[in-house]
Amino acid sequence: MINFDVMTLFPEMISQACSHSIISRGIVNGIISVNPINPRDYTKDKHKKVDDTPFGGGAGMVLMCQPYFDCFDSIEKDSDTEVIILSPQGEVFNQEISSELSKKSHIILLCGHYEGFDERIKEYTKAREISIGDYVLTGGELPALCIIDSVSRNVEGFLGKIESADYDSFSDGLLEYPQYTKPREYNNMPVPDVLLNGNHAEIAKWRRKQQMIVTYRKRRDLFDKFVKQCKDKRDLKLLNEVRKELDD
Amino acid sequence: MINFDVMTLFPEMISQACSHSIISRGIVNGIISVNPINPRDYTKDKHKKVDDTPFGGGAGMVLMCQPYFDCFDSIEKDSDTEVIILSPQGEVFNQEISSELSKKSHIILLCGHYEGFDERIKEYTKAREISIGDYVLTGGELPALCIIDSVSRNVEGFLGKIESADYDSFSDGLLEYPQYTKPREYNNMPVPDVLLNGNHAEIAKWRRKQQMIVTYRKRRDLFDKFVKQCKDKRDLKLLNEVRKELDD
Repeated sequence: MINFDVMTLFPEMISQACSHSIISRGIVNGIISVNPINPRDYTKDKHKKVDDTPFGGGAGMVLMCQPYFDCFDSIEKDSDTEVIILSPQGEVFNQEISSELSKKSHIILLCGHYEGFDERIKEYTKAREISIGDYVLTGGELPALCIIDSVSRNVEGFLGKIESADYDSFSDGLLEYPQYTKPREYNNMPVPDVLLNGNHAEIAKWRRKQQMIVTYRKRRDLFDKFVKQCKDKRDLKLLNEVRKELDD
Repeated sequence: MINFDVMTLFPEMISQACSHSIISRGIVNGIISVNPINPRDYTKDKHKKVDDTPFGGGAGMVLMCQPYFDCFDSIEKDSDTEVIILSPQGEVFNQEISSELSKKSHIILLCGHYEGFDERIKEYTKAREISIGDYVLTGGELPALCIIDSVSRNVEGFLGKIESADYDSFSDGLLEYPQYTKPREYNNMPVPDVLLNGNHAEIAKWRRKQQMIVTYRKRRDLFDKFVKQCKDKRDLKLLNEVRKELDD
């Protein structure tokens, strides 16, 4: 069970997005909880202001210390609490960090608007800064939702029997193999024969080779990393075959 | 003006998320439009099925050709239409791709569930595969929303006067400088003096150096890339000063 507390000026955006699909099921089943908290409810300003102009000039509004400090202080924490600020300046989120975070029982996510948090908020909360990628977004809400989704998938019981994380991309450093379902032929496009012959060893081998080929073609960086770390004898043999095929 | 057509089994998740903050204002102001379309409305299956078990065995359900082909065909396209499949196997989204996409007038986003699209859907739509990062999510909806948000920010008129993309992280290869707003001191934490003295040249210099220092500390990969490409004389001089400070 992971409790996510999400500090956001747009609490409805979080609760609405969590009311769909597998995330909503995870909440109903008590595998995770998601609790949006609005720093605006903690401001002492009579106009409910939460931002002000930056010292030193420039465009944009900066989120103020007081409402964020007080909102943060209102959340009960324990030794297992992880505090995360969503920010394009953070370390880049990946499957490894996702898996690490899924071992926590309490995660606080601070969503800013990317014109800027007052830097003192980062210092005060001692938050780990995480970015979901090298692009700028309007706010931290979508990144927070991505982290909730991704982290929850690693929690036991979150995915049902019909889903599986075992063959997901990145789970072992390679991208996923191509998938096909009925019908066998559609619009003159047939399913590869190997998937229809019921020979499970052959299917497993084809899929593993496809993983290598897809990763080589689409993400050379991941492929090179995989090759460097690969110690499995069967994988090494398949890698040799794949290299020959790619050379042709 | 960019029209986004989003093919998704969870259309409400898209429309709800687009009803908040700056995205909603962009829609109201006619800068972008976001139109969710449900492939389930196009299935010819009497039980409205859109997925089936994978050929060759394995866990998970695979999205079927028929509803996705027909849904895709129903969308009017022109020579400026860009078709994108959200997939962890795609090229990794970044600020450069975001800026490139913002020049399009029509973008179709296909959201799958990551257990898998039938591979023939990718072939048929000739979609560009894009991933928002090296982690697995339940569906393509959050990635589609991230792309809509990020791309829209580059469209003229989307950001109001009080926002600005000029100093965003990544806009010139460096992360953003630290921001501060009122009060000058909070909880014994003061704002750096330089931001209070009104000397604009000094402030600009401090901020540029901070960008370099923050990028060096948090994202050595981006810093190294910046150094390699840096030709601006003032930047080169500041880089020298920053190096000395970091060595101390």
